[in-house]
Amino acid sequence: MKKLLSKLPGPLLFALMAVAALGITPATAQEEEAGPVDEYLELVEASGAEYAPAFDFFTVSMLWTVIAAALVFLMHLGFATLEAGLTQSKNTVNILFKNVWIISIGLISYAVLGFNTHYPVDSWQITGWLGINGPIGDLNADGGDSWGYGGLSLAMTGYGDFIFQAMFAATAATIVSGAVAERIKLSSFMVYSTVLVAFGYTIAGSWHWGGGWLSNLGGGDAAFYDFAGSTVVHGFGGAAALAAVMILGPRKGKYTKDSIKPIVGHSMPLAAVGVFLLFFGWFGFNGGSVLSANPGPLGLVFTTTALAAAAGGISSILVSWAVLKKPDLSMALNGLLAGLVSITAGADSVSVFSSIIMGAIGGAIVVFSIIFFDKIKIDDPVGAISVHGVCGIWGTVAVAIFGGANLMSQIIGALGVYIFAFVFSLVLFLIIKAIMGVRVSEEEEFAGLDISEHGQEAYSAST
Amino acid sequence: MKKLLSKLPGPLLFALMAVAALGITPATAQEEEAGPVDEYLELVEASGAEYAPAFDFFTVSMLWTVIAAALVFLMHLGFATLEAGLTQSKNTVNILFKNVWIISIGLISYAVLGFNTHYPVDSWQITGWLGINGPIGDLNADGGDSWGYGGLSLAMTGYGDFIFQAMFAATAATIVSGAVAERIKLSSFMVYSTVLVAFGYTIAGSWHWGGGWLSNLGGGDAAFYDFAGSTVVHGFGGAAALAAVMILGPRKGKYTKDSIKPIVGHSMPLAAVGVFLLFFGWFGFNGGSVLSANPGPLGLVFTTTALAAAAGGISSILVSWAVLKKPDLSMALNGLLAGLVSITAGADSVSVFSSIIMGAIGGAIVVFSIIFFDKIKIDDPVGAISVHGVCGIWGTVAVAIFGGANLMSQIIGALGVYIFAFVFSLVLFLIIKAIMGVRVSEEEEFAGLDISEHGQEAYSAST
Amino acid sequence: MKKLLSKLPGPLLFALMAVAALGITPATAQEEEAGPVDEYLELVEASGAEYAPAFDFFTVSMLWTVIAAALVFLMHLGFATLEAGLTQSKNTVNILFKNVWIISIGLISYAVLGFNTHYPVDSWQITGWLGINGPIGDLNADGGDSWGYGGLSLAMTGYGDFIFQAMFAATAATIVSGAVAERIKLSSFMVYSTVLVAFGYTIAGSWHWGGGWLSNLGGGDAAFYDFAGSTVVHGFGGAAALAAVMILGPRKGKYTKDSIKPIVGHSMPLAAVGVFLLFFGWFGFNGGSVLSANPGPLGLVFTTTALAAAAGGISSILVSWAVLKKPDLSMALNGLLAGLVSITAGADSVSVFSSIIMGAIGGAIVVFSIIFFDKIKIDDPVGAISVHGVCGIWGTVAVAIFGGANLMSQIIGALGVYIFAFVFSLVLFLIIKAIMGVRVSEEEEFAGLDISEHGQEAYSAST
Repeated sequence: MKKLLSKLPGPLLFALMAVAALGITPATAQEEEAGPVDEYLELVEASGAEYAPAFDFFTVSMLWTVIAAALVFLMHLGFATLEAGLTQSKNTVNILFKNVWIISIGLISYAVLGFNTHYPVDSWQITGWLGINGPIGDLNADGGDSWGYGGLSLAMTGYGDFIFQAMFAATAATIVSGAVAERIKLSSFMVYSTVLVAFGYTIAGSWHWGGGWLSNLGGGDAAFYDFAGSTVVHGFGGAAALAAVMILGPRKGKYTKDSIKPIVGHSMPLAAVGVFLLFFGWFGFNGGSVLSANPGPLGLVFTTTALAAAAGGISSILVSWAVLKKPDLSMALNGLLAGLVSITAGADSVSVFSSIIMGAIGGAIVVFSIIFFDKIKIDDPVGAISVHGVCGIWGTVAVAIFGGANLMSQIIGALGVYIFAFVFSLVLFLIIKAIMGVRVSEEEEFAGLDISEHGQEAYSAST
Repeated sequence: MKKLLSKLPGPLLFALMAVAALGITPATAQEEEAGPVDEYLELVEASGAEYAPAFDFFTVSMLWTVIAAALVFLMHLGFATLEAGLTQSKNTVNILFKNVWIISIGLISYAVLGFNTHYPVDSWQITGWLGINGPIGDLNADGGDSWGYGGLSLAMTGYGDFIFQAMFAATAATIVSGAVAERIKLSSFMVYSTVLVAFGYTIAGSWHWGGGWLSNLGGGDAAFYDFAGSTVVHGFGGAAALAAVMILGPRKGKYTKDSIKPIVGHSMPLAAVGVFLLFFGWFGFNGGSVLSANPGPLGLVFTTTALAAAAGGISSILVSWAVLKKPDLSMALNGLLAGLVSITAGADSVSVFSSIIMGAIGGAIVVFSIIFFDKIKIDDPVGAISVHGVCGIWGTVAVAIFGGANLMSQIIGALGVYIFAFVFSLVLFLIIKAIMGVRVSEEEEFAGLDISEHGQEAYSAST
Repeated sequence: MKKLLSKLPGPLLFALMAVAALGITPATAQEEEAGPVDEYLELVEASGAEYAPAFDFFTVSMLWTVIAAALVFLMHLGFATLEAGLTQSKNTVNILFKNVWIISIGLISYAVLGFNTHYPVDSWQITGWLGINGPIGDLNADGGDSWGYGGLSLAMTGYGDFIFQAMFAATAATIVSGAVAERIKLSSFMVYSTVLVAFGYTIAGSWHWGGGWLSNLGGGDAAFYDFAGSTVVHGFGGAAALAAVMILGPRKGKYTKDSIKPIVGHSMPLAAVGVFLLFFGWFGFNGGSVLSANPGPLGLVFTTTALAAAAGGISSILVSWAVLKKPDLSMALNGLLAGLVSITAGADSVSVFSSIIMGAIGGAIVVFSIIFFDKIKIDDPVGAISVHGVCGIWGTVAVAIFGGANLMSQIIGALGVYIFAFVFSLVLFLIIKAIMGVRVSEEEEFAGLDISEHGQEAYSAST
């Protein structure tokens, strides 16, 4: 058909294009009150007549982007309730407070530092490795409210891009929050999480999304592949959590010479609410990472995401039943999450059958990983290191096995991010420890952080 | 205008169509980096120039389908929290665990068996009645990522269709889960729910959506009409639940010779969260059943759904207040759900005034139905049989009264599905009872399933 | 390009337009089974060929409108859980029951009275001030399912418009519900909230959205500006709440001569769930108020909304920490909400930097406001008057400071609505007090409304 077009005389061709765009603004419409449709048509016209029909695709893609951002936002409620549910009631206020802080500081710091570092407008300080940039300005300016922002390669406006990415930013800190729960000093965590999100995640993200070394790793068919962030988001958070927990040490009384004392969560309904909300929000996390409303990949990503989670849940139920000799709810819930993390790097590039296998393996891994870390006395109250860190590696490597990515690139890329996250978190945590301490006193831990840090209890009887 | 078109010379007409599609890919764009918009435009081109503008409708419809799927997914959290809230705290872990199992096995079994049976690609084993088929393959292949999948009669891709339907599949088992709560053996329920979803619902669904007898019932204006599943989903679940409860028997101590002992739910906030989430998810359940983003029906369905729920809530509040002499929260909550089930069969084909009447009648029915089943000693802790089974019949019949459907077809169709669900559930449950038993011991029931089955409590004090 | 068009001969121009619309229905398609796409194409054709491509924009905008309506619906769960969490467990059933009532009566009354008053089809009773109209009919009739409803100035159908606005309607009553919690008589509140929503909010809304005096205030660049309802929704609710609380009086024992007894909420997780759900739903509240899916404003509104909330949270944490000498979770949560209310009037018309400042100031205001009202013995258990009433004023005025609105118009408009809401609520409450009383007895208050009004407890131990 392109041939046919080339046979038309140039001016007529142009006129036809113009008609396709302008034919939609009839003379009569201009006499009516101006409304959103008029404004929209003006925008279409301003974008150039040749894009007219495609602009509707832009519009629906942008709508999906902001809805996906809202879904990812809800994951923060999922994290907050999951963490609260799996820990003791005497630390619940503290956990909720930390999560309000994390989402707030995550959004603001991403506006001030993160976004422009992930899309470097200025030069790198160290090419490919360090390129901190300043705050966002008016992202709707200079055509940022249409094609002018990303061209044909990005079906969203500047603000759409910002708000979707901003919701990811706080996730890394939230993952750490669960692992260090019940004994970390509040003020220290607030400083730690702020720096981690504002600088650590910002830098790691710039490697992948900002044109840094990770985005150039391998190259071509051998390029590092991480669709929605098994490595860059979940792995980063898991590795940072591991470093923090190693310095912080286990909760008092958790490990004795010969035994492990189970410290059970105070509300399984709260934990279940959290996991189902995370599952729900993951449709935005993975689905939004399609970066458009393109029907083919969108349907595939929703399907692989859901099936991997389901397979993770079943696998975790069966494996933990065999190992622990009982049907364990915490393991079932973590199995769903393990399946989700396992599919996140490859949700758009594996078959549904592969997604089930990937999720099922993730669901098995998480059971053994949680048991393993408990054995080596790494005290992670919610299993965050296993779910996000370990399954993050599995998910990244699995794209090589099931989705045609290059195994070496996947390993190098994952290792690079994990080592950076671990070292960044370690150094940061040690500095904070030296300056202000990182752990509450034994008495405070025994009393619970709610009373000792906040002077407030999460639950109270009627008076 | 069609006349005008016919006067244009054929080649020019074709050229114009081509321009409509291809005019949107300007020469300059090809020099930029390929992105989602390019890919999308290639897809549009591959679909044939004549569909160009309509393809945007396809895209937005598909987006709605996957968002609706996510909303229906969230209904499973609604069911989980509602069931947990309306039962005793000693059985909460058990209920949450069952719901993780149900959604997981529901999604996987729908990929393996259900979907291809609802859209039979192979032959029926018994024409119109039994046509079990195998697992889904690559639904994006052979044009399944665009028109190639359903033609002009379905504005979604193969995966969009799959994931939306898959979220419905587990619902039937969830409904039973609530009715048999607090005394069923976990392993038996896991087997039961798996078979019910993988075979029972699969078969019933194929009658309606797979071109089976139900879809041919009546025919023309007299065809059986069930828009989003008052009968096929909610009725199926309610009837299956009734059979299971009849075999299982009531909870110990619930009924004595002369009295009914109320066993109250342990957390009304949890129950309320569940009902509001179900209400929210129902916008996807009914709205997604429009099967496109067609503005006219979409707005109507949202409106009738919301107004029927509201009318159900008000009616249930007033009726139960008159009957029980107190403003009962459980009845108010069940009234919202009753309104929703009552509108599900006719949400797209009744007036808003009718939707209010239909919901209000549903809200009254549920009060008397719950009282009735309690009187005849059918012990249904959450009122699932009344809400889904009884209001499912009402909703199906109401389409004849208010929406112009044929009364006989509605009755025959509903009866057919209800009898099948009841008998399937009865036989399955009896087989499981004979082989592995269906009920926990009296001691286990007294101790609660959380301790006796899972060795874990839902709530625990801080240590 | 318009020039180019004018050079084409008229008939050809018309033919081209026709092709743009009709070229999408190929002959072969007519032989396939009719489906949603066919119906859609018929609708496009009926709308007139010249709107063909723009109709896709209409469709995606309408989809966003109904999704936004669902998000605003979920805010009612947010309000219910927030109110329940911040009050005592002995009044939880009562709070949940009230919220079921409010959403139900809000939706129904908006169908019967509100909608047609906000879009007056008949004459005003008092021009610009009072124009109560009757129930909605078939809003899809007479082209209400497409352009025929609002022309180019409204990218939604009649039902889309209705369901989105209907979800707003109940909000005012919900705000009052929190402020009067723990001592109001249930039946009195049910009457009060019904009249407030059906008449009070209906009238105030008609001033702004129904072409009343508020929409004509100032005029041109000096017009009153309230994007999504800082004044008309939140301010209205806050002012109504203040009047109700002043008549109702504080909870028994709250204030003694010399001291204020803190009556703490019974479940902070429930409160946190509420606030996060409100934040989530606010994307629909503000985002849906764009009234289309126009990419530019949509991205901006999501961004300013999220950043203002985040800034409110941080600001409230820091300010309350300084004032109260402890990191207070309730203040952190109310800070998020304060930021959201503060941005609601100007979300589409301020810069991101301004949105951060506006939210941060709101977060500080709410801390001092809550302390202030407690000092003057206005007992508001959830801080609703401060969050919605006081920050509603700030948000309205802030549009003048940061968004170029006219300061006098903003002040006059806000004052007008606040005074009306206050007086309406005052008079209504006094009438109800005279006829049926507004407050439970001291014994009932001590026992809790759950037992005294409902005969049911929110939580119960297993038996």
